[in-house]
Amino acid sequence: MHKIEIISRLKPETEKFDKIMHTDLADIDNSLLHKVVSYAIFNGGKRIRPLLTVLAARLCQPDSLTDESNIYRFALCFEYLHAASLLHDDVIDKAHKRRGQKSANTVWDNTHVILAGDFLHSRAMFLAGTLGKDQCLSIICKATEAMVKSEFIQLENANTLNTSEDNYYRVLQGKTAALISAACESGGIIANGTNSQCQALKLFGTNLGLTFQIVDDLLDYLGDPEKTGKIVGNDFQERKMTLPLIYTLAHAETTNKNLLKDLLEADVEARSAALEQARRIINDTGGFTYARQKAQTLINEAVNSLQIFPESPAKEIMTALSLYVLNREK
Amino acid sequence: MHKIEIISRLKPETEKFDKIMHTDLADIDNSLLHKVVSYAIFNGGKRIRPLLTVLAARLCQPDSLTDESNIYRFALCFEYLHAASLLHDDVIDKAHKRRGQKSANTVWDNTHVILAGDFLHSRAMFLAGTLGKDQCLSIICKATEAMVKSEFIQLENANTLNTSEDNYYRVLQGKTAALISAACESGGIIANGTNSQCQALKLFGTNLGLTFQIVDDLLDYLGDPEKTGKIVGNDFQERKMTLPLIYTLAHAETTNKNLLKDLLEADVEARSAALEQARRIINDTGGFTYARQKAQTLINEAVNSLQIFPESPAKEIMTALSLYVLNREK
Repeated sequence: MHKIEIISRLKPETEKFDKIMHTDLADIDNSLLHKVVSYAIFNGGKRIRPLLTVLAARLCQPDSLTDESNIYRFALCFEYLHAASLLHDDVIDKAHKRRGQKSANTVWDNTHVILAGDFLHSRAMFLAGTLGKDQCLSIICKATEAMVKSEFIQLENANTLNTSEDNYYRVLQGKTAALISAACESGGIIANGTNSQCQALKLFGTNLGLTFQIVDDLLDYLGDPEKTGKIVGNDFQERKMTLPLIYTLAHAETTNKNLLKDLLEADVEARSAALEQARRIINDTGGFTYARQKAQTLINEAVNSLQIFPESPAKEIMTALSLYVLNREK
Repeated sequence: MHKIEIISRLKPETEKFDKIMHTDLADIDNSLLHKVVSYAIFNGGKRIRPLLTVLAARLCQPDSLTDESNIYRFALCFEYLHAASLLHDDVIDKAHKRRGQKSANTVWDNTHVILAGDFLHSRAMFLAGTLGKDQCLSIICKATEAMVKSEFIQLENANTLNTSEDNYYRVLQGKTAALISAACESGGIIANGTNSQCQALKLFGTNLGLTFQIVDDLLDYLGDPEKTGKIVGNDFQERKMTLPLIYTLAHAETTNKNLLKDLLEADVEARSAALEQARRIINDTGGFTYARQKAQTLINEAVNSLQIFPESPAKEIMTALSLYVLNREK
């Protein structure tokens, strides 16, 4: 399925989610809180996480979804949790931009943003617990706990250059994969999927999430700034140990390895000036190829795990989405 | 019941909660996260909120609690939510102290503290949703939403001097009463209390929470710093419009009213220097007496709402706790 076709198929779904969220959030009777929450939510997101929940549910009930409107509303807990974590991340990172716009913490104070995140977190748990099944809430809480733990691992790694590949995946698992995986698994559970169906969906989500982040890390080195809207080489400048760099530090020949290590211990200007050189070393050592192959392997596993489901439009979109995540340029 | 007797009766309960929390939090496999969370939780708190849940449950099942260990564990969601909100509050207020010790944001970075708060929030919802009934999770989420809303009302009021008494109660309702009320009501629900029992417990919690905060606001003007461990007059210095001041601004004779208004528009040093004068005006206008009477009325209502329950040791403690909250000097 071509990228444009995917986007046009998803558009009505995105609009549907937005409409339900507008209704759901209309009961916030403090206008300032409503403003901050709306700013965080209605900023052009594609609603990938709730969409995956609904698609996963459809895989388990291919003919028609029972309680469809309930599932759509339940699915929003993943969008709210995602938005809540972005709000708190922006405060933590002192971010200036989010999706090309001023980040909420730039428009209002940290106070407003921390509290709006707490509100969305709470609202998400309300939807998860009252509309989902008991099992869903457990899965979702485990995912949010994993997100926090992953940030703590990152904090501990911040000053070490010898991050292992295992460690990298552990961070990715919590940072991106846990919530996407929970979104997929919960879709199966809420649609009364069998145990093996729910496990397959969980695995799909984990691999999709890991791929998403590996591709993100590749784009940080190789992306076209006009497409990504981000500065190239940001991770290298900030000494973020992502897969291409981790692989290269472990496999480069001694001279190049030492050069990279020196750069990582130097100041940010030195790294900024030497970006092209670092990129060449990573490329020559095979760091980009290695990361790319990992992403390909993971997405193959994701698609394979859907084999147990009969063919359906939902399955077609989920497969197409997987390839889109792998091949995206922004 | 004398204060010392209450404390000695509550001590084994506090220890029991601490023991369960130690076990519950032992699964945090990141040592730094475990450290921050433990610092926030094990700092000498009296566990009043979970205690109220258990006492409320006992009122509905005076002979013996079914699923006692489940109820104790469930009750901890209120301690976790309370701790989570204090962590985020300390970041927001850039606090230095909490219960006489360095606040967590002074020991670690805001990052750690925001994330540890998110972790506790999530863990609380997990306990609430998996051990409580559906209704409990709804009540608890409504309470956490109310806490956020109340902080937004405070943000909006920050620069207005004409806060009404209604507005003051609205803030108190979210800031302190909502969670205490939810703790009491949930205790009734989890112990299969009748609808009127649960409503009575909800009302008890609301009035106890409101009283708690009014007394806090009185102590800020009239407390003995050696007992409270806090500076006297902090609210006046920070232009916080609490009940004694709100009443006085509405009822003082013109000269005094204008004097207070001038002080509130002056700088913090001027207010600090004029604290004794302000206190005298509030006293002479009856602001302290009025607030004290309000607290007395509310606590009477709280105690009255327990009339529908037969006499029991749990009821005796709840009544004694109410009077303790009213008469506390710290």
